[in-house]
This record gives sequence, C-alpha cells and structure tokens, in this order.
Amino acid sequence: MAIEKKRNPLVKDMESISGFSKLSKEAKMEWLCGHFENPESAYEMLSSYWHNDKAVQKLHDEFIENTISNYYMPFGVAPNFLINNKMYTVPMAIEESSVVAAAAKAANFWLNRGGFKTTIISTTKIGHVHFAYWGDYEKLLNFFEGHVKALLFSEAEDLTRNMRARGGGIKDIQLINKTDEEPNYYQLYATFETCDSMGANFINSCLEQFSRTFKREIENSDLFTEREKELQVIMCILSNYTPECLIRAEVSCKVEDLEDEKKEYTWQEFVDKFEKAVHIARIEPYRATTHNKGIMNGIDSVVIATGNDFRAVEACAHTYAAKSGRYRSLTDVKVENGVFTFWIEVPLSLGTVGGITSLHPMVRFALEMLGHPGAQELMAITAVVGLAQNFSALRSLVTSGIQKGHMKMHLLNILNQLEATDEERKSIVKYFEHDTVTHAKVIELFCELRGVKSLAELK
Amino acid sequence: MAIEKKRNPLVKDMESISGFSKLSKEAKMEWLCGHFENPESAYEMLSSYWHNDKAVQKLHDEFIENTISNYYMPFGVAPNFLINNKMYTVPMAIEESSVVAAAAKAANFWLNRGGFKTTIISTTKIGHVHFAYWGDYEKLLNFFEGHVKALLFSEAEDLTRNMRARGGGIKDIQLINKTDEEPNYYQLYATFETCDSMGANFINSCLEQFSRTFKREIENSDLFTEREKELQVIMCILSNYTPECLIRAEVSCKVEDLEDEKKEYTWQEFVDKFEKAVHIARIEPYRATTHNKGIMNGIDSVVIATGNDFRAVEACAHTYAAKSGRYRSLTDVKVENGVFTFWIEVPLSLGTVGGITSLHPMVRFALEMLGHPGAQELMAITAVVGLAQNFSALRSLVTSGIQKGHMKMHLLNILNQLEATDEERKSIVKYFEHDTVTHAKVIELFCELRGVKSLAELK
Repeated sequence: MAIEKKRNPLVKDMESISGFSKLSKEAKMEWLCGHFENPESAYEMLSSYWHNDKAVQKLHDEFIENTISNYYMPFGVAPNFLINNKMYTVPMAIEESSVVAAAAKAANFWLNRGGFKTTIISTTKIGHVHFAYWGDYEKLLNFFEGHVKALLFSEAEDLTRNMRARGGGIKDIQLINKTDEEPNYYQLYATFETCDSMGANFINSCLEQFSRTFKREIENSDLFTEREKELQVIMCILSNYTPECLIRAEVSCKVEDLEDEKKEYTWQEFVDKFEKAVHIARIEPYRATTHNKGIMNGIDSVVIATGNDFRAVEACAHTYAAKSGRYRSLTDVKVENGVFTFWIEVPLSLGTVGGITSLHPMVRFALEMLGHPGAQELMAITAVVGLAQNFSALRSLVTSGIQKGHMKMHLLNILNQLEATDEERKSIVKYFEHDTVTHAKVIELFCELRGVKSLAELK
Repeated sequence: MAIEKKRNPLVKDMESISGFSKLSKEAKMEWLCGHFENPESAYEMLSSYWHNDKAVQKLHDEFIENTISNYYMPFGVAPNFLINNKMYTVPMAIEESSVVAAAAKAANFWLNRGGFKTTIISTTKIGHVHFAYWGDYEKLLNFFEGHVKALLFSEAEDLTRNMRARGGGIKDIQLINKTDEEPNYYQLYATFETCDSMGANFINSCLEQFSRTFKREIENSDLFTEREKELQVIMCILSNYTPECLIRAEVSCKVEDLEDEKKEYTWQEFVDKFEKAVHIARIEPYRATTHNKGIMNGIDSVVIATGNDFRAVEACAHTYAAKSGRYRSLTDVKVENGVFTFWIEVPLSLGTVGGITSLHPMVRFALEMLGHPGAQELMAITAVVGLAQNFSALRSLVTSGIQKGHMKMHLLNILNQLEATDEERKSIVKYFEHDTVTHAKVIELFCELRGVKSLAELK
C-alpha cells in the first residue's frame, strides 16, 4: 500500500563529494543510490527509465550535466485545432491532468464556430550591453552615432552572416541613458530579427562582440579622458522580455451559438458570467495569476513538446501581464452587435530550428506532426492553445465549477495508489457521482469493500 | 545528416476526428502516424519511448489524457548543497544545458563559506468565492459575520477533517467589498493552512462548499429582498498568487572570501560588478525578466523533479516580482561592514504529499534522495537552488561572460548532430578554445576534416 507506506529516511546521510561531475553516469548513480535503504532497487528503478537504445539515451544524457535518468513528462495530443483555416493535431507535454482534455474540448467547440484566427504583431528580439560610464553623455552619444555604431554592425558580420542569409540579423543599436534611475548607468540597446530560431546564442554572441568593439574604440580614441576610458561593461545579455515579439489569437461567434448543447445553461447566462470572470481577472491580481496560470498550462505544454524554453516564455508572458503597473489577465473579451469575441495578446519568443529542436526525437516528432512550422506558425499554434485552455477553464468555472472534473481525476489517482481492482473502482466511482470526493471517504469505502477496518490490516 | 535533412511536410494533411479520446492508445497513434511519410517508423519511435514495464507505462499514461508516449526531460543531480547545516544532493529535471552545472558550481562555492540559510516567513494559502450581489453591503456584512461565517466552517467539516488532523485547515474567511473597482463585485476571501500538501483540490472543494452554504443561507433568509437573493456566484477558485506562502534564503561571507581562486579578478572588482548587476535587475524590467528567468531555471527543475506544478510556481513568483507596480528582481544584495549578503525572497506553494508525488516513480526517488522533506523543507531547498542559480549566472555574466559556457555546449550539440567521431570532436573543440563558435564555422571545419566541400557530399 504505497499510500500508507512509512517513508524511510535515507539510510546514510548525504555527505559532500568532490569531482562528482567527472564520474561516469553509473558511478554517480552508485554513489547516490548507496545512501538508499535498498541501493540495488533504487539503481534498477533509475535505469529502468533509460531508453533501450544506448545511443539515444546518450543523446539525452548529454543535453544537461550530471544526468542519471529521464523524468517522464506525459506526451499527449489534442486534435481538431482549426487555426487560420488549417487543421492541426497539437502535441502537449505536461504532467497535470485535465489540461489536454480541456484543450481538446475547446478545439472541438470552436471547430464548428469558425476556428481560431491569429495575427503576428511583430517579431523583434532584444538584447543589452549594460555598462557604467563616468563622463560626458553628449560626447559619448556623438561618438557612438558618428563612429561606433557602424563598426558594431561590421565587426559582427562573421557572426551574423548565416542569419542575414535567412533574412534576419541586427535591426538597430541605440545608446540609452539610464542615469536618472542609477548613477552612471547606460545601455547599448540592440534589436534583432532571428527568423525561425529563438536566437539566444546568436544575440548573446553579438552583444559580447559589441562590448569588445565598443570598449576598444573608446580606449583608442583621443576624445575621451582617462576616467571616461574606464568605461565598465557590467554584462552583455539578451532580454527574455520581448513585448515586440507579439501575437494575437482570437475566437468569435454569434452569442446565440454559445448555447450549451446539453441545455444546462442559456447563452445569456454564459456570456454574462464569462464576461464577469474575465473582468475580474483584469482588475484583481489574485485572480489574474491563476487565470494566466491556466493559459500557461496550455502554452507551456506546446513549448515543451516542441523543444522550446518554458522558463523564458513564462518570464516574458508574466512581465507582459504586469506591464500596466498592475498584474492583469492576458486574455480579454467583448460582446458587440451580438458577436462574442475572446482573444489573447501574448509575447512568445519561440524557435523551430536550433537548440534541441532537431536533436530530441520526441521534439522532432512534435514538429513533424505540426507540419514543420516556422517560428511564426508555432507562435500562432501556441497562443491558440493558451486561449483554448483559458476558454475551457472559464467555461467550467462559471458553469459546473472546476472541481467536478478535477476530483474525478483525484479519485482515480487515489484508486491507483490503493491498487484497487476494476470492480472496486467501479463501485467507488459510482458512489462519488453525487458526493464530494475526500481522501478519507475513499479509504473508508475501500476498507468496507475489503472487509477491513483500516488499510494497516491489508499489509 | 540530421542537420541538413530536408524536412518533409506531412504526407497527409490533418483532418478533424470525432471520438478521438475514446480510442485506445494504439489506435490514436495509428491515426496520427498515418499522416507521416513513414507511419511505421513514426509509430516505432513513439513506442521506443515507452517504459518496458507495461504497468509502469500505464501509470504514466493515466496522468493526463490522450497520452501516446513520454517526453524525456533529462533528470540530473547537483551534490554539495549545504542548507541550514544539512547536506543535500538535489534532483533537477530540465532540458537546458548549463543549469545543473551552474547549481553544482554555486553549491561547491558556498560549501566552504557556511552554506545556505533559510527562513520560512509564512505558509498561508488563499482562495476566493467571486460573486455579484445587487443590494445593501452592510446588511450582507452583518449577516455574514453574525450567521454565515460559522456555518461555512461547520459545513466544511467533512472536507477539512483530515487536514485538521494534520494541523491545517481553514484559517479565516472574510467578506470583501470590491465594488469600487467593478460594480456589484464582492469576494469571500479565505485563507488556508494545507501542511505538506500543495492544497489545490482541498481549497477548491472547500470554496465550492462555501458557495453552496452561502447562497442557500441568503436565499432562505427573510432579511433579503428578492433582488438581493439573486446573489450570483461567478466562480470559486484558489489563487496561485500566495505572497504569504513565503521563504527567504541567503548566503553570506566576508568580502575577501569572494576572491577568485584562479585570480582572474579581485574581490573588489567582483563585488562592485555583482552589486551593479543586481541593482540593474531591481530597476530595469528588461533585465529583471531574464534575471528572474535564470532563478526559475533552478526553481523549476526542482519543482518538476519533485512532482510539483511549475506553472503555479512561475505565475506566483512573477506576480510577486511585479508587486511594487514595477517588475523587479527576486534577489537582492548588500555589503555591510565587510560582509557580503545575497538573498532571495520568493513565494513557493509546494507539496510533498498528494498529486503525483507518491505516484511517479522518479518523483518518489527525488523525494527519497532529499530525505522525504515536508513542504517547508522543500520550499527551503527549492529557494536555495534558485538563489544558487542566480549567483552562478551573475558570476559568469560579470566576469567571463555567459557565452563561454553556453557556446561550448552549443558546439557539442552541433557535433552531435553531425555525428562527428571522437577525433573530429577533439580537433574542432580545440579550434574554438580562442574563437567564437558559429554554426557556419563548425560546418566548414567539419567538411575540411572530411575532405569535402559541403555536407551534401556526405549523404
């Protein structure tokens, strides 16, 4: 009975170890498992999660450092997404129940109501050389505009050649004076077009080259004093906040078409509560956080399945949600002339080449099932899944409540832990059709079925 | 040559399908793979990612809906974390290179400087019943305080029994008037202590019960007019924004002890640039986003490995970062009396029981290697890894620059794609010791070594 099992502490306390990263994978696992009550079974469990093909496993091992096994993130699919009149089956990697089901449900709902439409607003990426400078700003600005800027472009040509061939590259570089906020603080603020790649390595390599060129030119110029030549580069780094790498996705239909097929609610009731729920998420940060969290359930599951970086996408989306000075919903709704429109506007910096996109076999599969989209098409698909997720979540919340579906999953999880038979499952699931699931009540019913007073008797 | 392979579009366009969720896993895969150029090899690839033990795979399949395979998220470990004088080896699940290495590096660095210290500030969780009410607020407030509130507690007793036995439960319920922001909008604002569970199901079940009790009592009371009795529950939902489920983690040492062992920089230079880098992330949202993204690299990798919900943690952390009205860094630094102190304050709502924590074998392993922590201990470990990650990132940024490490990994990834031999790898890695890695240059060197003009010749 996993559920009631006494959790043994480690048999041996962890101790420090030097040179760990240099050990083989097997030696790392042996050292680690040596602290467990049953080292052999721990080692076996870990290795049971390896891929059978050693070369494939080696590939996965090398993505990060000190890899010992694979964490399985369930990989599901949601069919029936009609986006800009094209049909997609969307790959989703996520560990949370109900998310794929909610996406698929929203896809079905909108399939017969015209599907999803998207617009790319812009695709600009951003990076900075942050530096301190003790001297005259006007002089620096003139030197930058008149002399340095062109050099920054030309000395980065080796780095930008491939990107330029694909239609991208450095868009602009500006000198920004931030001394009103922090003494002596300035930036080179650079914008980039990175085409189908997310572009982090490209941008960071360009920025580091900018800083070398910039510093050298200042040092070699007679215009600057010794103090001014001590210009200090603090750091060169892309920004994950890309408000100008922005997409809008929307659904829209006649209000009457929102009527529930099962007639559990009228379209008037639905629209009224749906609008209120979205307005609350516009004005109440406590609600906006959870509202956007649901959107990110959908977005992240596509981001992960397609080999993109969900921390970057999360950080950007939430900063964008806070841009007005108050943390707000990423989606909005309006009803005009009998037409219901629900939309999301979200910055998404994604890539379909580079990184692990062509290395991870499951990612290659995911991109293939989407028809090998470019970055802009992937932005569209991802934003749509976020919007779909939010639509389903709000629909549940304002009608049956969210717990009905969640607690059904919760109940199945408890029954799995109990290793209940099919017959026991059926009987207990039936019981909870009209009652709130509690862990204690499930255990009580289970014990009753097995004719015992407590789980302890079953050990 | 994966890297240059022509990407074929799907052989057959996606079409809509009804009843997909009812199909067996195998039938789902067959339908999906039927669109691929080579359906058999696509099917084989997917099933090669299944666990060998069918029962284990079934468990993973059931976590979500429409599961067809597993996305491998590399599972690595970072040893040598000394936290509150106890040693930990930390499990990290993440697909991004350099993150585990950076964590391990920071752990080693602070191991000999007193390790990490943490303080739990508070552990309160939050949920709301959002509702509309057309009537007299004072009357509602009196009725709530004098009559309903006690009933909300007592009628939820079945739901809260287990949680109360563990020392948790409902802490308080308040009626909040939000009509200054949205007409007729009110909340029941409830606070909870959920002990070692994250508590989402518990809180949502309580809130839905509150709404039933509340609505019934108003309807049955003679105090209210017909219009007032039409009180409309919009939704019942926990908030993922939990600023009062808060932890602080810090490191501190004498400034001289920050001297680089390799003497590449002095402690004065390091402290100066480190302080500036943190200050920039306090005042410049473009930088704060990326700064916090790095922190979340560390936090999420522990959150995922321990079976927690990273979307919830992300949404909460970023809303917290924006709480002042401007999006800011989650970490801060000070130097006082020759002592350097670097800390993070971050809300983290985590569980070590419930959800998939006792179901996912890799999660059980992760929790066992941490010695089966309670939720508060897991908050400490997770916050520490976020702080460690940020320390390593800033240290790289203000000294050698971040690209040195990144581009080494990038190079290895390209060489993997090229399926370069060990000898070819060594030669190419050596070349880039003093030169910036570009994709084009790697291909050029590789072709040179193989005596061809382009990769096309190798097919």
